[in-house]
Amino acid sequence: MSEHVQGKLLIIGGAEDKTGDKKILKRFVEEAGKKPVVVLTAATEYPRRVGAEYTEVLQGLGVHDVRILDVADRGQANSEEIPHLLTSVSGVFLTGGDQLRITGLLGGTLLGRSLHNLYEKGVIIAGTSAGASVMSDTMIVGGEAGTPRKNTLTMAPGLGLLRSIVVDQHFAQRGRIGRLLEAVAHNPYVLGIGIDEDTAILVHPDGRFSVVGSQTVTVIDASESVASNVSESRPGQPLVLSPVRMHVLPEEYEFDLRRRVFLPAG
Amino acid sequence: MSEHVQGKLLIIGGAEDKTGDKKILKRFVEEAGKKPVVVLTAATEYPRRVGAEYTEVLQGLGVHDVRILDVADRGQANSEEIPHLLTSVSGVFLTGGDQLRITGLLGGTLLGRSLHNLYEKGVIIAGTSAGASVMSDTMIVGGEAGTPRKNTLTMAPGLGLLRSIVVDQHFAQRGRIGRLLEAVAHNPYVLGIGIDEDTAILVHPDGRFSVVGSQTVTVIDASESVASNVSESRPGQPLVLSPVRMHVLPEEYEFDLRRRVFLPAG
Repeated sequence: MSEHVQGKLLIIGGAEDKTGDKKILKRFVEEAGKKPVVVLTAATEYPRRVGAEYTEVLQGLGVHDVRILDVADRGQANSEEIPHLLTSVSGVFLTGGDQLRITGLLGGTLLGRSLHNLYEKGVIIAGTSAGASVMSDTMIVGGEAGTPRKNTLTMAPGLGLLRSIVVDQHFAQRGRIGRLLEAVAHNPYVLGIGIDEDTAILVHPDGRFSVVGSQTVTVIDASESVASNVSESRPGQPLVLSPVRMHVLPEEYEFDLRRRVFLPAG
Repeated sequence: MSEHVQGKLLIIGGAEDKTGDKKILKRFVEEAGKKPVVVLTAATEYPRRVGAEYTEVLQGLGVHDVRILDVADRGQANSEEIPHLLTSVSGVFLTGGDQLRITGLLGGTLLGRSLHNLYEKGVIIAGTSAGASVMSDTMIVGGEAGTPRKNTLTMAPGLGLLRSIVVDQHFAQRGRIGRLLEAVAHNPYVLGIGIDEDTAILVHPDGRFSVVGSQTVTVIDASESVASNVSESRPGQPLVLSPVRMHVLPEEYEFDLRRRVFLPAG
């Protein structure tokens, strides 16, 4: 999204299909171009199982060189082998798990900086579930479904590959519109993007995204909201938001993140 | 909402507080003015228990004459006793249960017409849960939570006290924004109103509503949506909606249903 970025982001709402037509993972491989791909399993407590699962699927889609990169501590994220492992890589995939494991392990490390460098130079960075949440500069870590309230969310700094945006995943399936509304109510400058399961946004270098997958993506834009009770209400109190501009977008529809407008299909 | 209506509607998202400060039921009694009140238990399969519960709460709030009206068949809804039972009534309360029981039993009957007459003449008509859904001319009968899709909702004609509106209840608690979006996508002329539990809208004769209760009310206005895939998509396919104007309103906030605009608090 910054001027000099040449890479793309594939931000997946979790539970992407791995056994049927595998549309999202297929798109990842198409964009990465079958060159070496790194699967970063830092988010999960089960790196072996998850790593083996993605290796099998990605190989099945024609990627010959799948490199599993597990990072169990910050020492490993600063290891001298990192540059070697990332040589000539054309795609990085962040698995699901716990978003704080990703940022806690990678933030400020050689690997963390390498992800930014790869993205800027044209590599596609994909992430699913927790791996999707970490894409933005501020991320949702926890929060209940239900009515938007003041200060019920846990947020933390993300990897910052995407600016001025908050991503939420498993969106419709877990009824998370309330917590995304809360996130944007706290700072309406931020654009909320809720991504359903088996659905992704592919963010292009020009700031457009296109939707891939079987469900929908919901964009929440509160920047023109005329009402706010955030400053005068107490924690836990219901929030007012009016008006919010919302966009519900299924596959093939596009959205311009810079101008915050819907782009007709095709 | 029509020009000659003098009554009000109190449309409750279900599970209104009956043991604490009883804010919504208290508001019903204030509006009805402690004159005779009818509790219509047609929606529920447990009319005795539900009737006794509301009798106790309403009497506790100062209503001396609480009349329970159970209707088990359409014959009773056409009974000659109906006009007598409704004499000098200042409020009618429709309980929760099954919305099709209400419309199936009342539609086209003396009691059904009487509700319209009472409303036009200044009586407040309240309804909770199923009793809220039946207020509009088309009502949601069933449908899954999740992404808005084509033709996954069951809808039916409601009582029609409120025109060009679709009401959904237990809104945030049951994650129902997807099905309300589906309802308005099918005909963006209709305004969607999602009411949370223990929350209500009080609709005034001038077309304003004010929010009462502990959660929020969500208004979905798709009338300016520029995108639609309803006609070309197959049943079950995800829908596009862009842009949708949404308003999330907690207690004391007001909305103008005719102009579809938010009114500042107070």
